[in-house]
Amino acid sequence: MNAQLKVNALRNLMQTSKIAAYYVPSADPHMSEYLPDCWKCRDWLSGFTGSAGDLIVGLRKAALWTDGRYFLQATKELKDSDIGLMKMGEPGTPSMPAWVASQLKKGQVLGVDPTVISMAAAEKFEQDLAPHGIKVKFLRTNLVTKLWDDRPEASLAPITNHSSKFAGETVGNKMKRVREAMKQVGAKAMVIGALDEVAWLLNIRAADIAYTPVVISYVLLTERRCYLYVDPRKVPKAFAATLKKRATLKKYDAIWNDLKTLAKKKLTIWLDPTTTNRRVSDELRGSRFHLAASPIAGMKAIKNNVQITGITNAHRRDGVAMVRFLKWLEKAAPKGDVTEISAAEQLEAFRAMGEGFKDLSFNTISGYAGNGAIIHYGPTKKSNAKLKAPGLYLIDSGAQYPDGTTDITRTIALGKPTPRQIECFTRVLMGTIDCTITPFPAGTPGYRNEMFARKALWEIGEDYAHGTGHGVGQYLGVHEGPHSLKNIITPPFVEGNLMSIEPGHYEAGKFGIRIEHLAFVVKHEKFSKRGRTWYTFHPVTLCPIDRKLVSKKLLNKAQVEWLNTYHKRCFHELASSLDKEHREWLQKACRPI
Amino acid sequence: MNAQLKVNALRNLMQTSKIAAYYVPSADPHMSEYLPDCWKCRDWLSGFTGSAGDLIVGLRKAALWTDGRYFLQATKELKDSDIGLMKMGEPGTPSMPAWVASQLKKGQVLGVDPTVISMAAAEKFEQDLAPHGIKVKFLRTNLVTKLWDDRPEASLAPITNHSSKFAGETVGNKMKRVREAMKQVGAKAMVIGALDEVAWLLNIRAADIAYTPVVISYVLLTERRCYLYVDPRKVPKAFAATLKKRATLKKYDAIWNDLKTLAKKKLTIWLDPTTTNRRVSDELRGSRFHLAASPIAGMKAIKNNVQITGITNAHRRDGVAMVRFLKWLEKAAPKGDVTEISAAEQLEAFRAMGEGFKDLSFNTISGYAGNGAIIHYGPTKKSNAKLKAPGLYLIDSGAQYPDGTTDITRTIALGKPTPRQIECFTRVLMGTIDCTITPFPAGTPGYRNEMFARKALWEIGEDYAHGTGHGVGQYLGVHEGPHSLKNIITPPFVEGNLMSIEPGHYEAGKFGIRIEHLAFVVKHEKFSKRGRTWYTFHPVTLCPIDRKLVSKKLLNKAQVEWLNTYHKRCFHELASSLDKEHREWLQKACRPI
Repeated sequence: MNAQLKVNALRNLMQTSKIAAYYVPSADPHMSEYLPDCWKCRDWLSGFTGSAGDLIVGLRKAALWTDGRYFLQATKELKDSDIGLMKMGEPGTPSMPAWVASQLKKGQVLGVDPTVISMAAAEKFEQDLAPHGIKVKFLRTNLVTKLWDDRPEASLAPITNHSSKFAGETVGNKMKRVREAMKQVGAKAMVIGALDEVAWLLNIRAADIAYTPVVISYVLLTERRCYLYVDPRKVPKAFAATLKKRATLKKYDAIWNDLKTLAKKKLTIWLDPTTTNRRVSDELRGSRFHLAASPIAGMKAIKNNVQITGITNAHRRDGVAMVRFLKWLEKAAPKGDVTEISAAEQLEAFRAMGEGFKDLSFNTISGYAGNGAIIHYGPTKKSNAKLKAPGLYLIDSGAQYPDGTTDITRTIALGKPTPRQIECFTRVLMGTIDCTITPFPAGTPGYRNEMFARKALWEIGEDYAHGTGHGVGQYLGVHEGPHSLKNIITPPFVEGNLMSIEPGHYEAGKFGIRIEHLAFVVKHEKFSKRGRTWYTFHPVTLCPIDRKLVSKKLLNKAQVEWLNTYHKRCFHELASSLDKEHREWLQKACRPI
Repeated sequence: MNAQLKVNALRNLMQTSKIAAYYVPSADPHMSEYLPDCWKCRDWLSGFTGSAGDLIVGLRKAALWTDGRYFLQATKELKDSDIGLMKMGEPGTPSMPAWVASQLKKGQVLGVDPTVISMAAAEKFEQDLAPHGIKVKFLRTNLVTKLWDDRPEASLAPITNHSSKFAGETVGNKMKRVREAMKQVGAKAMVIGALDEVAWLLNIRAADIAYTPVVISYVLLTERRCYLYVDPRKVPKAFAATLKKRATLKKYDAIWNDLKTLAKKKLTIWLDPTTTNRRVSDELRGSRFHLAASPIAGMKAIKNNVQITGITNAHRRDGVAMVRFLKWLEKAAPKGDVTEISAAEQLEAFRAMGEGFKDLSFNTISGYAGNGAIIHYGPTKKSNAKLKAPGLYLIDSGAQYPDGTTDITRTIALGKPTPRQIECFTRVLMGTIDCTITPFPAGTPGYRNEMFARKALWEIGEDYAHGTGHGVGQYLGVHEGPHSLKNIITPPFVEGNLMSIEPGHYEAGKFGIRIEHLAFVVKHEKFSKRGRTWYTFHPVTLCPIDRKLVSKKLLNKAQVEWLNTYHKRCFHELASSLDKEHREWLQKACRPI
């Protein structure tokens, strides 16, 4: 069935359900960033496979909203459908509600499966459409999965224990802290929909979503009980007894009835409107809601000392793989046989040699020359470029280890870089360094620190069209909140936060530059003596930065010192895990500028 | 009558009116920053004379909320009353609604004069008190002015024309632009309560508030008409005919009946909830409100070319006065007769010699040594310190000229400064320079640029507890919105904005440092060629910075270059207005570092 036939079949179902438009978001019931295959309804229906893109099918027209990363890909993939492409961020592109309002008449209805839309998004649709007399109907039957006959099963990957030798905190203690937060706001229960929050709370992992070792499940936490709603086939016999000590196990779909029963008690229930799907709040109707960011997000973002040790160890192993890769690349690329895909595969192979390697933490961005300028580029068979000098090569990659998640970007000069490439690389490096080393007082949110990463580029009239950094989980999502280094309002940093710092510079068709490391927020002991607490970032990523691309004369004293000290540390911490040949290579790569 | 007797008399009136608490904010009907004398109800009632502080009188207790600038002063001035001091920003200080909730029982009432509370503030009180069953009653009779028998008359200062040779735009054209903005949102009328907005729209000025040349009045602007509500005694005969061409004149109090009549038409009316008093919206009940920031604020903040020329000229004259003052100070201070007050008076005298000088633009901050560390310090007879070496002297001052408003801070070393003073001064200077010279892309709001002013201080674990800058009017308020260089969400800068840039450093009991200039947002021509518009700041303030306090080795090349170029420009632009002796002094003060 092609997209056209599928959309027409959907329209038949829509007419039976008396709805004039149907919303198919890129979402699962847990508001995950990456989707499990069984929830890729939008991909199946439209043929568009990008990671972000929401579809609305009207009775005559259909349209898909996606952002600049995917304009080209979407145009290609939607070619044989009648689905129009809505280029988000371009002038004149209507918002989804505005488009619905233009297509539907007063009294007509927009339908959506309430399990794949967050409370917040659902309310926004309702608010924006109400003035037009258009209602939103939350249809319990998902019209797309009804049509999708070869829909994959949900993952049955076994649940594993996330050992407290990595987690550093027992489930009991975590629950105690969450319940204290609940008590403070008078909440008697909380429904946890975000999968990384469930995994953190119960110290469990699985492999239900690519790159993200979460367990598809819900948690209902009350003052005294904890229920885990999960497919029982995912619970290995050997782990069942342990798991049952942490939570009462119930079938995944049993949550709906339980919520209905809970609603009758008319309690105050904590729901995070951005990660809780609308069906949860619908089933709980009659309860009082405490609508706020989940307390778990903030707790999860503060790594304890055991986690910090684990994450540091994981980065040491990851650094060893990166060094092997860079040395290999230096020798292999000039022979002319390395492509973007083969390089990424080789790096994965080096990582797989490391202790505890589980998976990549995201799809490797491996971009040569102009491909490096495409911010979220992933090489395909068709685009796969051969690496050859002269040219810049950008590789942004990461791995999942039980003790830590990594995310690192390095940009390497093949052959002799141009003066422009050197200037831009050096300014990106200045941003990475300044954002890392500038101390900041308690109470500083990331949108303030982020400016230090942009300054050196702004000085030459350049800016990068992405945020500077994101939080990173421990053997969990490579992107996690609630903190960020972006121009959005997020909570102030506290000790133990783990952030990526990754400014960049991109010249379309020519080259891309990005330098990324992960860094912990640590207390600045000296400055914290006078009553106010001060912080700074301490990098945990260990891998040399290409000295060929650094112009020393652009750097100030503190920046030169940082680079030399960082390289010294890279050598010092990685050398003992390397053979002589690699050690010598690393020593050369780490010599002072 | 002392504060205690006044408060008791108020309590009698409260009981007659059946209210259990009465709110006396520091406010006038136009939500002015500085108050006309006749609206200093809180001062009269409590005896506290600070510029910020809100009073609530309960039947048994009374309390006054003010911020850190005024803790000492308020403690002294409230000593003989039973009014408690609520230290805002200190842990454990309740908010005003929380305090009311703790004092009143369910069903009791908080009273306030609706003309001295903004729509936004009134709604906040209502929302916060509703859960406690406490109502807010908007009493048309102001209970304080009823008691205040020697209350001053409102100013009868004559209205003057703000010549279009300074304004650069006719009233007709301004109204056309405002009406276009109204049309875009479907508003048929707008009530303008903010006095600087009225003054800007009608090109009029008066002297109704100290330092701020506004006219106490309201404007009602409809699609075709404009009404100015003002005391007719303020309209000079010679100007009446001209003024009547701009607006239909009505008595100040006639607005209430007109609004009641207007309400019957059930039109959409634009009200800015932060500058419109609650009585306006009460009288308009039945209308639809478009609640949003006034479009005039944004228009007023963009100076046209005629204004830019005028403001530049005013700063040249102001710079001449500053140079005379600095030279005088250098000679007079060592003689031992100069005090904080006499220095401020001398500077005012130098300014008054300049063409068109009208008034200061705010109460001069003139602080020697430890007094300079008090951010909003104004010397009193008692605190008045003698200026003597060694020590730092901080002077933050400004003037009103018909073509421009000025605001400048300089910090001067008397005798030999300490290494610590030099380091801190240099880092404040680095902040002033970096915030001024770093180019920024269109769409950047001030909370981002502001970070460049803090970076050099953060590097040594220092931070200043105030914003970095504010907008400045033309022969109007020395503080104006909507833009800011503070850690709050304000609109992105556009060409023609005029901002202060004023980082500082303060060591309690020892010294204060601040360096302030005003600067226009100008287009960065070179960087704007590639599709995106870039801006930078161009300083308009002209006055040398004390070279004795600058450590060249801390500055980078661009900072040294900026300082030398700026000083060259100061000399070049001021020299021709100075006699030989002053010219020679200035040349020395402006020589390269």
